[in-house]
Amino acid sequence: MKDLKQITVVGLGLLGGSITLEVLRCFPGVKVVGYSHRPQTRQKARNLAVASEIADDLAQSVAVADMVILATPIFTFENIFAEISPALAAGCIVTDVGSAKVLPHRWAARKLSKSVFYVGSHPIAGSEQRGVEFARDDLFDNADCIVTKTRNTNPGAIETVKNFWQRLGCFVQLMSPAQHDKVFAGVSHLPHIAAVALTNAADADHLRFAGKGFLDTSRVASGPANIWADILLANAANCQSAAEKLIGELKKIRDTLMAQDRKRLQKLLEKANTKRNVLVKYKIEKKGLIP
Amino acid sequence: MKDLKQITVVGLGLLGGSITLEVLRCFPGVKVVGYSHRPQTRQKARNLAVASEIADDLAQSVAVADMVILATPIFTFENIFAEISPALAAGCIVTDVGSAKVLPHRWAARKLSKSVFYVGSHPIAGSEQRGVEFARDDLFDNADCIVTKTRNTNPGAIETVKNFWQRLGCFVQLMSPAQHDKVFAGVSHLPHIAAVALTNAADADHLRFAGKGFLDTSRVASGPANIWADILLANAANCQSAAEKLIGELKKIRDTLMAQDRKRLQKLLEKANTKRNVLVKYKIEKKGLIP
Repeated sequence: MKDLKQITVVGLGLLGGSITLEVLRCFPGVKVVGYSHRPQTRQKARNLAVASEIADDLAQSVAVADMVILATPIFTFENIFAEISPALAAGCIVTDVGSAKVLPHRWAARKLSKSVFYVGSHPIAGSEQRGVEFARDDLFDNADCIVTKTRNTNPGAIETVKNFWQRLGCFVQLMSPAQHDKVFAGVSHLPHIAAVALTNAADADHLRFAGKGFLDTSRVASGPANIWADILLANAANCQSAAEKLIGELKKIRDTLMAQDRKRLQKLLEKANTKRNVLVKYKIEKKGLIP
Repeated sequence: MKDLKQITVVGLGLLGGSITLEVLRCFPGVKVVGYSHRPQTRQKARNLAVASEIADDLAQSVAVADMVILATPIFTFENIFAEISPALAAGCIVTDVGSAKVLPHRWAARKLSKSVFYVGSHPIAGSEQRGVEFARDDLFDNADCIVTKTRNTNPGAIETVKNFWQRLGCFVQLMSPAQHDKVFAGVSHLPHIAAVALTNAADADHLRFAGKGFLDTSRVASGPANIWADILLANAANCQSAAEKLIGELKKIRDTLMAQDRKRLQKLLEKANTKRNVLVKYKIEKKGLIP
Protein backbone atom coordinates (compact mmCIF):
# COMPACT_ATOMS: atom_id res chain seq x y z
CA MET A 1 0.00 0.00 0.00
CA LYS A 2 1.20 3.41 -0.96
CA ASP A 3 2.25 6.05 1.53
CA LEU A 4 0.21 9.19 0.83
CA LYS A 5 1.82 12.58 1.32
CA GLN A 6 -0.32 14.66 -1.00
CA ILE A 7 -3.82 14.07 -2.26
CA THR A 8 -5.30 16.32 -4.93
CA VAL A 9 -9.02 16.64 -5.49
CA VAL A 10 -10.12 18.02 -8.86
CA GLY A 11 -13.58 19.53 -8.68
CA LEU A 12 -14.85 21.27 -5.56
CA GLY A 13 -18.58 20.68 -5.41
CA LEU A 14 -20.45 18.97 -2.60
CA LEU A 15 -18.51 15.74 -3.12
CA GLY A 16 -15.06 17.17 -3.86
CA GLY A 17 -15.28 19.64 -0.99
CA SER A 18 -16.44 16.92 1.37
CA ILE A 19 -13.49 14.71 0.36
CA THR A 20 -10.96 17.46 1.07
CA LEU A 21 -12.63 18.18 4.43
CA GLU A 22 -12.58 14.46 5.29
CA VAL A 23 -8.89 14.19 4.36
CA LEU A 24 -8.12 17.13 6.66
CA ARG A 25 -9.91 15.25 9.45
CA CYS A 26 -8.88 11.63 8.79
CA PHE A 27 -5.36 12.06 7.37
CA PRO A 28 -3.54 14.46 9.67
CA GLY A 29 -0.19 15.36 8.14
CA VAL A 30 -1.31 14.65 4.59
CA LYS A 31 -1.48 17.69 2.34
CA VAL A 32 -4.75 17.97 0.47
CA VAL A 33 -4.90 20.24 -2.56
CA GLY A 34 -8.17 21.26 -4.15
CA TYR A 35 -8.65 22.50 -7.70
CA SER A 36 -11.66 23.91 -9.48
CA HIS A 37 -11.68 25.43 -12.95
CA ARG A 38 -13.97 28.18 -11.68
CA PRO A 39 -12.25 31.13 -9.97
CA GLN A 40 -15.44 31.76 -7.98
CA THR A 41 -15.47 28.21 -6.62
CA ARG A 42 -11.79 28.45 -5.73
CA GLN A 43 -12.52 31.64 -3.83
CA LYS A 44 -15.42 30.04 -1.95
CA ALA A 45 -13.28 26.98 -1.19
CA ARG A 46 -10.51 29.22 0.16
CA ASN A 47 -12.96 31.16 2.31
CA LEU A 48 -14.34 27.93 3.70
CA ALA A 49 -10.82 26.50 4.11
CA VAL A 50 -11.90 23.10 2.83
CA ALA A 51 -8.34 22.05 1.85
CA SER A 52 -4.70 22.65 2.83
CA GLU A 53 -4.32 24.58 -0.42
CA ILE A 54 -6.53 25.63 -3.32
CA ALA A 55 -4.60 25.56 -6.60
CA ASP A 56 -5.22 27.86 -9.57
CA ASP A 57 -3.66 25.54 -12.12
CA LEU A 58 -4.75 21.98 -12.82
CA ALA A 59 -1.40 20.52 -13.97
CA GLN A 60 0.41 22.18 -11.08
CA SER A 61 -2.21 20.94 -8.57
CA VAL A 62 -1.53 17.28 -9.44
CA ALA A 63 2.24 17.47 -10.14
CA VAL A 64 3.49 16.02 -6.85
CA ALA A 65 0.30 14.26 -5.79
CA ASP A 66 0.43 10.61 -4.69
CA MET A 67 -3.27 10.32 -5.38
CA VAL A 68 -5.58 12.39 -7.59
CA ILE A 69 -9.34 12.17 -7.19
CA LEU A 70 -11.66 13.51 -9.88
CA ALA A 71 -14.91 14.90 -8.50
CA THR A 72 -16.14 16.66 -11.63
CA PRO A 73 -18.98 15.62 -13.97
CA ILE A 74 -18.22 12.25 -15.61
CA PHE A 75 -17.97 13.52 -19.17
CA THR A 76 -15.15 15.86 -18.18
CA PHE A 77 -12.95 12.91 -17.15
CA GLU A 78 -11.60 12.07 -20.59
CA ASN A 79 -10.22 15.56 -21.14
CA ILE A 80 -8.97 15.89 -17.58
CA PHE A 81 -7.13 12.55 -17.86
CA ALA A 82 -5.49 13.80 -21.07
CA GLU A 83 -4.61 17.13 -19.50
CA ILE A 84 -3.14 15.83 -16.23
CA SER A 85 -1.38 12.76 -17.64
CA PRO A 86 1.88 14.51 -18.63
CA ALA A 87 2.00 16.30 -15.26
CA LEU A 88 1.56 13.22 -13.05
CA ALA A 89 4.48 11.65 -11.22
CA ALA A 90 5.17 7.99 -12.01
CA GLY A 91 3.24 5.71 -9.67
CA CYS A 92 0.53 8.30 -8.98
CA ILE A 93 -2.86 6.76 -8.30
CA VAL A 94 -5.80 8.31 -10.13
CA THR A 95 -9.38 7.70 -9.10
CA ASP A 96 -12.71 9.47 -9.37
CA VAL A 97 -16.12 9.57 -7.74
CA GLY A 98 -18.23 9.17 -10.88
CA SER A 99 -21.55 7.33 -10.60
CA ALA A 100 -20.84 5.30 -13.75
CA LYS A 101 -17.66 3.29 -14.11
CA VAL A 102 -17.33 1.62 -17.53
CA LEU A 103 -16.55 4.83 -19.41
CA PRO A 104 -14.07 6.22 -16.84
CA HIS A 105 -12.09 2.96 -17.02
CA ARG A 106 -12.13 3.13 -20.82
CA TRP A 107 -11.01 6.77 -20.86
CA ALA A 108 -8.30 6.14 -18.27
CA ALA A 109 -6.89 3.27 -20.34
CA ARG A 110 -6.76 5.56 -23.38
CA LYS A 111 -5.65 8.84 -21.90
CA LEU A 112 -3.55 8.19 -18.81
CA SER A 113 0.13 7.31 -19.06
CA LYS A 114 1.05 3.70 -18.31
CA SER A 115 3.27 4.94 -15.48
CA VAL A 116 0.22 5.91 -13.34
CA PHE A 117 -2.48 3.66 -11.90
CA TYR A 118 -6.20 4.18 -12.37
CA VAL A 119 -8.79 2.64 -10.05
CA GLY A 120 -12.49 3.54 -10.17
CA SER A 121 -14.41 4.69 -7.08
CA HIS A 122 -18.05 5.39 -6.41
CA PRO A 123 -18.81 6.49 -2.89
CA ILE A 124 -22.58 6.27 -2.37
CA ALA A 125 -23.02 9.59 -0.67
CA GLY A 126 -24.26 13.02 -1.55
CA SER A 127 -27.52 14.87 -1.52
CA GLU A 128 -29.70 16.80 -3.88
CA GLN A 129 -27.75 19.92 -2.88
CA ARG A 130 -24.78 21.19 -4.80
CA GLY A 131 -21.76 23.36 -4.25
CA VAL A 132 -18.77 23.48 -1.94
CA GLU A 133 -20.87 25.40 0.61
CA PHE A 134 -22.72 22.14 1.31
CA ALA A 135 -19.51 20.14 1.83
CA ARG A 136 -19.39 18.18 5.09
CA ASP A 137 -16.58 16.34 6.81
CA ASP A 138 -18.87 13.43 7.72
CA LEU A 139 -20.48 12.84 4.33
CA PHE A 140 -18.88 9.40 3.94
CA ASP A 141 -19.47 8.05 7.44
CA ASN A 142 -21.00 4.60 7.04
CA ALA A 143 -21.48 5.12 3.31
CA ASP A 144 -20.94 2.31 0.85
CA CYS A 145 -18.12 2.85 -1.60
CA ILE A 146 -17.69 0.71 -4.68
CA VAL A 147 -14.13 0.39 -5.91
CA THR A 148 -13.91 -0.86 -9.49
CA LYS A 149 -11.09 -2.74 -11.17
CA THR A 150 -10.41 -4.63 -14.36
CA ARG A 151 -7.87 -7.40 -15.06
CA ASN A 152 -5.32 -4.67 -15.76
CA THR A 153 -5.76 -2.69 -12.56
CA ASN A 154 -2.69 -2.53 -10.32
CA PRO A 155 -3.31 -4.54 -7.11
CA GLY A 156 -1.33 -2.16 -4.91
CA ALA A 157 -3.32 0.79 -6.23
CA ILE A 158 -6.56 -1.07 -5.50
CA GLU A 159 -5.41 -1.61 -1.90
CA THR A 160 -4.48 2.05 -1.49
CA VAL A 161 -7.78 3.31 -2.86
CA LYS A 162 -9.72 0.78 -0.77
CA ASN A 163 -7.93 1.84 2.39
CA PHE A 164 -8.43 5.50 1.57
CA TRP A 165 -12.21 5.16 1.49
CA GLN A 166 -12.27 2.92 4.54
CA ARG A 167 -10.35 5.53 6.49
CA LEU A 168 -13.02 8.07 5.45
CA GLY A 169 -15.62 5.79 7.05
CA CYS A 170 -16.86 3.85 4.02
CA PHE A 171 -17.77 0.19 3.64
CA VAL A 172 -15.79 -0.75 0.52
CA GLN A 173 -16.90 -3.35 -1.99
CA LEU A 174 -14.96 -4.36 -5.11
CA MET A 175 -16.71 -4.80 -8.46
CA SER A 176 -15.97 -4.82 -12.16
CA PRO A 177 -17.01 -1.59 -13.91
CA ALA A 178 -19.67 -3.49 -15.91
CA GLN A 179 -21.19 -5.06 -12.79
CA HIS A 180 -21.16 -1.68 -11.07
CA ASP A 181 -22.99 0.04 -13.90
CA LYS A 182 -25.65 -2.65 -14.03
CA VAL A 183 -26.26 -2.63 -10.28
CA PHE A 184 -26.44 1.16 -10.04
CA ALA A 185 -28.70 1.53 -13.04
CA GLY A 186 -31.30 -0.27 -10.90
CA VAL A 187 -30.69 1.10 -7.43
CA SER A 188 -29.64 4.67 -8.17
CA HIS A 189 -30.14 5.81 -11.74
CA LEU A 190 -33.61 4.33 -12.12
CA PRO A 191 -34.94 6.02 -8.95
CA HIS A 192 -33.69 9.27 -10.44
CA ILE A 193 -35.44 8.60 -13.74
CA ALA A 194 -38.61 7.62 -11.86
CA ALA A 195 -38.54 10.77 -9.71
CA VAL A 196 -38.05 13.01 -12.74
CA ALA A 197 -40.80 11.27 -14.72
CA LEU A 198 -43.17 11.43 -11.73
CA THR A 199 -42.55 15.15 -11.24
CA ASN A 200 -42.99 15.85 -14.94
CA ALA A 201 -46.18 13.78 -15.02
CA ALA A 202 -47.74 15.81 -12.20
CA ASP A 203 -50.10 18.65 -13.02
CA ALA A 204 -48.36 21.81 -11.78
CA ASP A 205 -51.68 23.23 -10.55
CA HIS A 206 -52.24 20.19 -8.35
CA LEU A 207 -48.79 20.11 -6.76
CA ARG A 208 -49.69 22.33 -3.83
CA PHE A 209 -51.75 19.40 -2.54
CA ALA A 210 -48.71 17.14 -2.58
CA GLY A 211 -47.88 15.59 0.78
CA LYS A 212 -44.82 13.87 2.18
CA GLY A 213 -45.37 10.91 -0.15
CA PHE A 214 -44.88 12.99 -3.27
CA LEU A 215 -42.03 14.97 -1.72
CA ASP A 216 -40.07 11.84 -0.82
CA THR A 217 -40.79 9.97 -4.01
CA SER A 218 -39.63 12.95 -6.05
CA ARG A 219 -36.78 14.18 -3.82
CA VAL A 220 -33.88 13.11 -6.00
CA ALA A 221 -35.39 15.01 -8.95
CA SER A 222 -34.06 18.13 -7.20
CA GLY A 223 -30.52 16.93 -7.92
CA PRO A 224 -28.47 19.01 -10.39
CA ALA A 225 -29.76 18.41 -13.94
CA ASN A 226 -26.38 18.63 -15.67
CA ILE A 227 -24.68 16.16 -13.32
CA TRP A 228 -27.56 13.72 -13.66
CA ALA A 229 -27.74 14.06 -17.43
CA ASP A 230 -24.07 13.09 -17.35
CA ILE A 231 -24.63 10.07 -15.12
CA LEU A 232 -27.59 8.75 -17.10
CA LEU A 233 -25.85 9.25 -20.44
CA ALA A 234 -22.68 7.62 -19.12
CA ASN A 235 -24.76 4.56 -18.25
CA ALA A 236 -27.30 4.88 -21.05
CA ALA A 237 -27.75 1.25 -22.12
CA ASN A 238 -28.29 -0.02 -18.56
CA CYS A 239 -30.56 2.92 -17.72
CA GLN A 240 -32.58 2.28 -20.82
CA SER A 241 -33.27 -1.33 -19.93
CA ALA A 242 -33.96 -0.38 -16.31
CA ALA A 243 -36.50 2.17 -17.57
CA GLU A 244 -38.09 -0.55 -19.73
CA LYS A 245 -38.39 -2.76 -16.67
CA LEU A 246 -40.04 0.04 -14.72
CA ILE A 247 -42.46 0.69 -17.57
CA GLY A 248 -43.28 -3.04 -17.54
CA GLU A 249 -44.00 -2.97 -13.79
CA LEU A 250 -46.18 0.14 -14.21
CA LYS A 251 -48.15 -1.60 -16.94
CA LYS A 252 -48.76 -4.56 -14.62
CA ILE A 253 -50.27 -2.23 -12.02
CA ARG A 254 -52.27 -0.30 -14.62
CA ASP A 255 -53.68 -3.57 -15.98
CA THR A 256 -54.87 -4.69 -12.53
CA LEU A 257 -56.63 -1.32 -12.15
CA MET A 258 -58.29 -1.66 -15.56
CA ALA A 259 -59.49 -5.15 -14.60
CA GLN A 260 -60.33 -4.16 -10.99
CA ASP A 261 -58.24 -7.23 -10.12
CA ARG A 262 -57.77 -6.71 -6.39
CA LYS A 263 -56.00 -10.00 -5.85
CA ARG A 264 -53.25 -9.34 -8.37
CA LEU A 265 -52.92 -5.68 -7.41
CA GLN A 266 -52.52 -6.56 -3.75
CA LYS A 267 -49.90 -9.17 -4.68
CA LEU A 268 -47.89 -6.53 -6.53
CA LEU A 269 -48.15 -4.15 -3.58
CA GLU A 270 -47.20 -6.89 -1.14
CA LYS A 271 -44.21 -7.92 -3.21
CA ALA A 272 -42.86 -4.36 -3.10
CA ASN A 273 -43.69 -4.09 0.57
CA THR A 274 -41.78 -7.22 1.53
CA LYS A 275 -38.85 -6.37 -0.71
CA ARG A 276 -38.48 -2.90 0.73
CA ASN A 277 -38.89 -4.06 4.31
CA VAL A 278 -36.05 -6.56 3.82
CA LEU A 279 -33.95 -3.70 2.47
CA VAL A 280 -34.75 -1.41 5.41
CA LYS A 281 -33.97 -4.20 7.87
CA TYR A 282 -30.65 -4.83 6.13
CA LYS A 283 -29.75 -1.14 6.23
CA ILE A 284 -30.61 -0.85 9.92
CA GLU A 285 -28.69 -3.99 10.84
CA LYS A 286 -25.67 -2.96 8.80
CA LYS A 287 -25.48 0.32 10.63
CA GLY A 288 -25.42 -1.64 13.88
CA LEU A 289 -28.72 -0.20 15.09
CA ILE A 290 -30.03 -3.74 15.56
CA PRO A 291 -27.63 -6.23 17.17
CA MET B 1 -72.37 25.05 13.10
CA LYS B 2 -73.22 22.08 15.21
CA ASP B 3 -72.35 21.76 18.88
CA LEU B 4 -70.40 18.56 19.32
CA LYS B 5 -70.87 16.53 22.50
CA GLN B 6 -69.82 13.12 21.25
CA ILE B 7 -67.63 12.14 18.35
CA THR B 8 -67.30 8.50 17.33
CA VAL B 9 -64.39 7.20 15.32
CA VAL B 10 -64.90 3.88 13.54
CA GLY B 11 -61.59 2.15 12.85
CA LEU B 12 -58.64 2.50 15.17
CA GLY B 13 -55.53 2.32 13.03
CA LEU B 14 -52.85 4.98 12.79
CA LEU B 15 -55.37 7.53 11.47
CA GLY B 16 -58.38 6.62 13.62
CA GLY B 17 -56.28 6.44 16.78
CA SER B 18 -54.62 9.75 15.97
CA ILE B 19 -58.02 11.40 15.48
CA THR B 20 -59.29 10.19 18.87
CA LEU B 21 -56.07 11.37 20.54
CA GLU B 22 -56.37 14.76 18.84
CA VAL B 23 -60.00 15.11 19.95
CA LEU B 24 -58.94 14.40 23.55
CA ARG B 25 -56.37 17.18 23.20
CA CYS B 26 -58.25 19.75 21.10
CA PHE B 27 -61.87 19.26 22.28
CA PRO B 28 -61.80 19.16 26.06
CA GLY B 29 -65.24 18.18 27.37
CA VAL B 30 -66.20 16.33 24.18
CA LYS B 31 -66.59 12.59 24.57
CA VAL B 32 -64.73 10.62 21.94
CA VAL B 33 -65.71 7.02 21.39
CA GLY B 34 -63.57 4.63 19.40
CA TYR B 35 -64.72 1.43 17.73
CA SER B 36 -62.80 -1.33 15.98
CA HIS B 37 -64.26 -4.62 14.76
CA ARG B 38 -61.17 -6.41 16.09
CA PRO B 39 -61.20 -7.29 19.79
CA GLN B 40 -57.40 -7.18 19.80
CA THR B 41 -57.33 -3.62 18.45
CA ARG B 42 -59.97 -2.56 20.99
CA GLN B 43 -57.79 -3.99 23.75
CA LYS B 44 -54.70 -2.19 22.45
CA ALA B 45 -56.70 1.04 22.14
CA ARG B 46 -57.93 0.67 25.73
CA ASN B 47 -54.42 0.03 27.01
CA LEU B 48 -53.16 3.09 25.17
CA ALA B 49 -56.19 5.11 26.32
CA VAL B 50 -56.57 6.75 22.92
CA ALA B 51 -60.25 7.62 23.48
CA SER B 52 -62.73 8.45 26.26
CA GLU B 53 -64.29 5.08 25.64
CA ILE B 54 -63.71 2.07 23.39
CA ALA B 55 -67.00 0.50 22.32
CA ASP B 56 -67.52 -3.20 21.58
CA ASP B 57 -70.55 -2.66 19.37
CA LEU B 58 -70.66 -0.56 16.22
CA ALA B 59 -74.34 0.50 16.32
CA GLN B 60 -74.09 1.33 20.01
CA SER B 61 -70.87 3.31 19.48
CA VAL B 62 -72.58 5.72 17.07
CA ALA B 63 -76.05 5.88 18.65
CA VAL B 64 -75.74 9.24 20.41
CA ALA B 65 -72.83 10.63 18.37
CA ASP B 66 -73.06 14.13 16.90
CA MET B 67 -70.37 13.23 14.43
CA VAL B 68 -69.15 9.86 13.17
CA ILE B 69 -65.80 9.54 11.40
CA LEU B 70 -64.95 6.44 9.38
CA ALA B 71 -61.25 5.58 9.46
CA THR B 72 -61.46 2.08 8.00
CA PRO B 73 -60.43 0.91 4.49
CA ILE B 74 -62.52 2.66 1.81
CA PHE B 75 -64.29 -0.44 0.52
CA THR B 76 -65.73 -1.10 3.98
CA PHE B 77 -67.62 2.22 3.92
CA GLU B 78 -70.65 1.03 1.97
CA ASN B 79 -71.44 -1.72 4.47
CA ILE B 80 -70.64 0.43 7.48
CA PHE B 81 -72.96 3.18 6.18
CA ALA B 82 -75.73 0.58 5.81
CA GLU B 83 -75.05 -0.85 9.24
CA ILE B 84 -74.89 2.41 11.20
CA SER B 85 -77.66 4.26 9.34
CA PRO B 86 -80.58 2.92 11.46
CA ALA B 87 -78.64 3.64 14.66
CA LEU B 88 -77.74 7.25 13.92
CA ALA B 89 -79.57 10.14 15.55
CA ALA B 90 -81.26 12.61 13.20
CA GLY B 91 -78.86 15.41 12.28
CA CYS B 92 -75.76 13.34 12.89
CA ILE B 93 -72.85 14.28 10.67
CA VAL B 94 -71.00 11.41 9.01
CA THR B 95 -67.57 11.83 7.47
CA ASP B 96 -64.57 9.65 6.72
CA VAL B 97 -60.85 9.92 6.06
CA GLY B 98 -60.71 7.91 2.85
CA SER B 99 -58.12 8.84 0.22
CA ALA B 100 -60.69 8.64 -2.59
CA LYS B 101 -63.96 10.58 -2.44
CA VAL B 102 -66.26 9.85 -5.39
CA LEU B 103 -67.25 6.37 -4.18
CA PRO B 104 -67.80 7.34 -0.52
CA HIS B 105 -70.16 10.14 -1.63
CA ARG B 106 -72.02 7.68 -3.88
CA TRP B 107 -72.30 5.07 -1.13
CA ALA B 108 -73.40 7.64 1.46
CA ALA B 109 -76.16 8.87 -0.86
CA ARG B 110 -77.37 5.29 -1.26
CA LYS B 111 -76.95 3.86 2.21
CA LEU B 112 -77.30 6.65 4.75
CA SER B 113 -80.67 7.89 5.92
CA LYS B 114 -81.77 11.33 4.65
CA SER B 115 -81.95 12.50 8.27
CA VAL B 116 -78.14 12.47 8.63
CA PHE B 117 -75.54 14.56 6.77
CA TYR B 118 -72.57 13.13 4.93
CA VAL B 119 -69.49 15.24 4.11
CA GLY B 120 -66.26 13.77 2.73
CA SER B 121 -62.88 14.40 4.36
CA HIS B 122 -59.35 13.57 3.37
CA PRO B 123 -56.72 14.73 5.84
CA ILE B 124 -53.32 14.50 4.12
CA ALA B 125 -51.47 12.87 6.97
CA GLY B 126 -50.24 9.46 7.90
CA SER B 127 -47.12 7.43 7.40
CA GLU B 128 -46.10 4.07 6.04
CA GLN B 129 -46.66 2.68 9.55
CA ARG B 130 -49.91 1.11 10.61
CA GLY B 131 -51.74 0.34 13.80
CA VAL B 132 -53.08 2.25 16.78
CA GLU B 133 -49.68 1.92 18.47
CA PHE B 134 -48.36 4.51 15.98
CA ALA B 135 -51.20 6.97 16.69
CA ARG B 136 -50.02 10.48 17.56
CA ASP B 137 -51.88 13.46 18.92
CA ASP B 138 -50.05 15.83 16.54
CA LEU B 139 -50.50 13.91 13.30
CA PHE B 140 -52.69 16.62 11.77
CA ASP B 141 -50.69 19.67 12.82
CA ASN B 142 -50.24 21.81 9.70
CA ALA B 143 -51.61 19.05 7.47
CA ASP B 144 -53.83 19.81 4.52
CA CYS B 145 -57.33 18.45 4.76
CA ILE B 146 -59.64 18.30 1.77
CA VAL B 147 -63.35 18.50 2.62
CA THR B 148 -65.57 17.31 -0.24
CA LYS B 149 -69.14 18.28 -1.01
CA THR B 150 -71.68 17.93 -3.77
CA ARG B 151 -74.69 20.12 -4.62
CA ASN B 152 -76.67 18.08 -2.10
CA THR B 153 -74.31 18.41 0.84
CA ASN B 154 -75.74 20.24 3.88
CA PRO B 155 -74.00 23.63 4.30
CA GLY B 156 -74.11 23.49 8.11
CA ALA B 157 -72.54 20.04 8.08
CA ILE B 158 -69.77 21.31 5.78
CA GLU B 159 -69.07 24.14 8.24
CA THR B 160 -68.95 21.74 11.19
CA VAL B 161 -66.59 19.30 9.44
CA LYS B 162 -64.41 22.14 8.21
CA ASN B 163 -64.14 23.59 11.71
CA PHE B 164 -63.44 20.18 13.17
CA TRP B 165 -60.34 19.67 11.03
CA GLN B 166 -59.19 23.25 11.50
CA ARG B 167 -59.33 22.79 15.27
CA LEU B 168 -57.13 19.70 14.82
CA GLY B 169 -54.55 21.91 13.12
CA CYS B 170 -55.38 21.34 9.45
CA PHE B 171 -55.51 23.75 6.52
CA VAL B 172 -58.91 22.96 5.05
CA GLN B 173 -59.74 23.21 1.36
CA LEU B 174 -63.13 22.48 -0.21
CA MET B 175 -63.43 20.43 -3.41
CA SER B 176 -65.90 18.35 -5.32
CA PRO B 177 -65.31 14.59 -4.95
CA ALA B 178 -64.43 14.32 -8.66
CA GLN B 179 -61.89 17.13 -8.47
CA HIS B 180 -60.40 15.59 -5.33
CA ASP B 181 -59.94 12.19 -6.95
CA LYS B 182 -58.29 13.68 -10.01
CA VAL B 183 -55.86 15.81 -7.99
CA PHE B 184 -54.88 13.01 -5.62
CA ALA B 185 -54.42 10.47 -8.39
CA GLY B 186 -51.49 12.65 -9.47
CA VAL B 187 -50.00 13.84 -6.20
CA SER B 188 -50.58 10.83 -3.96
CA HIS B 189 -51.74 7.68 -5.71
CA LEU B 190 -49.29 7.94 -8.60
CA PRO B 191 -46.25 8.31 -6.28
CA HIS B 192 -47.43 5.13 -4.60
CA ILE B 193 -47.75 3.32 -7.92
CA ALA B 194 -44.31 4.61 -8.95
CA ALA B 195 -42.70 3.50 -5.68
CA VAL B 196 -44.21 0.03 -5.94
CA ALA B 197 -43.21 -0.37 -9.59
CA LEU B 198 -39.68 0.88 -8.85
CA THR B 199 -39.25 -1.57 -5.99
CA ASN B 200 -40.61 -4.45 -8.05
CA ALA B 201 -38.35 -3.50 -10.98
CA ALA B 202 -35.23 -3.65 -8.80
CA ASP B 203 -33.12 -6.80 -8.76
CA ALA B 204 -33.35 -8.14 -5.18
CA ASP B 205 -29.67 -9.10 -5.23
CA HIS B 206 -28.68 -5.53 -6.02
CA LEU B 207 -30.80 -3.86 -3.37
CA ARG B 208 -28.16 -3.94 -0.66
CA PHE B 209 -26.31 -1.29 -2.68
CA ALA B 210 -29.33 1.00 -2.56
CA GLY B 211 -28.63 4.38 -1.01
CA LYS B 212 -30.84 7.13 0.35
CA GLY B 213 -32.10 7.90 -3.15
CA PHE B 214 -33.68 4.49 -3.57
CA LEU B 215 -34.94 4.44 0.02
CA ASP B 216 -36.73 7.77 -0.33
CA THR B 217 -38.09 7.15 -3.81
CA SER B 218 -39.53 3.83 -2.66
CA ARG B 219 -40.59 4.78 0.89
CA VAL B 220 -44.33 4.82 0.36
CA ALA B 221 -44.19 1.28 -1.05
CA SER B 222 -43.84 0.19 2.60
CA GLY B 223 -47.40 1.35 3.20
CA PRO B 224 -49.99 -1.36 3.98
CA ALA B 225 -50.80 -3.29 0.79
CA ASN B 226 -54.48 -3.87 1.56
CA ILE B 227 -55.18 -0.20 2.36
CA TRP B 228 -53.40 0.91 -0.79
CA ALA B 229 -55.07 -1.67 -3.00
CA ASP B 230 -58.29 -0.17 -1.68
CA ILE B 231 -57.28 3.39 -2.43
CA LEU B 232 -56.03 2.65 -5.95
CA LEU B 233 -59.10 0.57 -6.82
CA ALA B 234 -61.40 3.24 -5.40
CA ASN B 235 -59.78 5.73 -7.78
CA ALA B 236 -58.98 3.29 -10.58
CA ALA B 237 -59.83 5.36 -13.66
CA ASN B 238 -57.82 8.39 -12.52
CA CYS B 239 -54.92 6.22 -11.35
CA GLN B 240 -54.90 4.43 -14.67
CA SER B 241 -54.56 7.62 -16.66
CA ALA B 242 -51.99 8.97 -14.20
CA ALA B 243 -49.99 5.75 -14.71
CA GLU B 244 -50.24 6.23 -18.49
CA LYS B 245 -48.88 9.74 -18.11
CA LEU B 246 -45.97 8.46 -16.03
CA ILE B 247 -45.24 5.76 -18.62
CA GLY B 248 -45.25 8.50 -21.27
CA GLU B 249 -42.73 10.58 -19.29
CA LEU B 250 -40.52 7.53 -18.75
CA LYS B 251 -40.55 6.83 -22.47
CA LYS B 252 -39.45 10.41 -23.16
CA ILE B 253 -36.43 9.91 -20.90
CA ARG B 254 -35.68 6.47 -22.35
CA ASP B 255 -35.78 7.90 -25.87
CA THR B 256 -33.27 10.62 -25.03
CA LEU B 257 -30.96 7.93 -23.62
CA MET B 258 -31.32 5.81 -26.77
CA ALA B 259 -30.50 8.83 -28.89
CA GLN B 260 -27.77 10.13 -26.52
CA ASP B 261 -29.70 13.40 -26.78
CA ARG B 262 -28.13 15.37 -23.95
CA LYS B 263 -29.99 18.57 -24.72
CA ARG B 264 -33.44 17.02 -24.50
CA LEU B 265 -32.53 14.86 -21.49
CA GLN B 266 -31.19 17.84 -19.60
CA LYS B 267 -34.37 19.78 -20.43
CA LEU B 268 -36.50 17.00 -18.94
CA LEU B 269 -34.34 16.91 -15.81
CA GLU B 270 -34.44 20.69 -15.50
CA LYS B 271 -38.20 20.78 -15.90
CA ALA B 272 -38.59 18.34 -12.98
CA ASN B 273 -36.00 20.22 -10.98
CA THR B 274 -37.73 23.57 -11.35
CA LYS B 275 -41.17 22.12 -10.72
CA ARG B 276 -40.08 20.37 -7.54
CA ASN B 277 -38.16 23.38 -6.26
CA VAL B 278 -41.27 25.54 -6.65
CA LEU B 279 -43.18 22.92 -4.68
CA VAL B 280 -40.60 22.78 -1.88
CA LYS B 281 -40.54 26.58 -1.68
CA TYR B 282 -44.35 26.65 -1.45
CA LYS B 283 -44.35 24.02 1.32
CA ILE B 284 -41.71 25.87 3.32
CA GLU B 285 -43.46 29.22 2.95
CA LYS B 286 -46.83 27.78 3.84
CA LYS B 287 -45.45 26.38 7.07
CA GLY B 288 -44.21 29.87 7.89
CA LEU B 289 -40.55 28.88 7.84
CA ILE B 290 -39.88 31.65 5.33
CA PRO B 291 -41.51 34.99 6.09
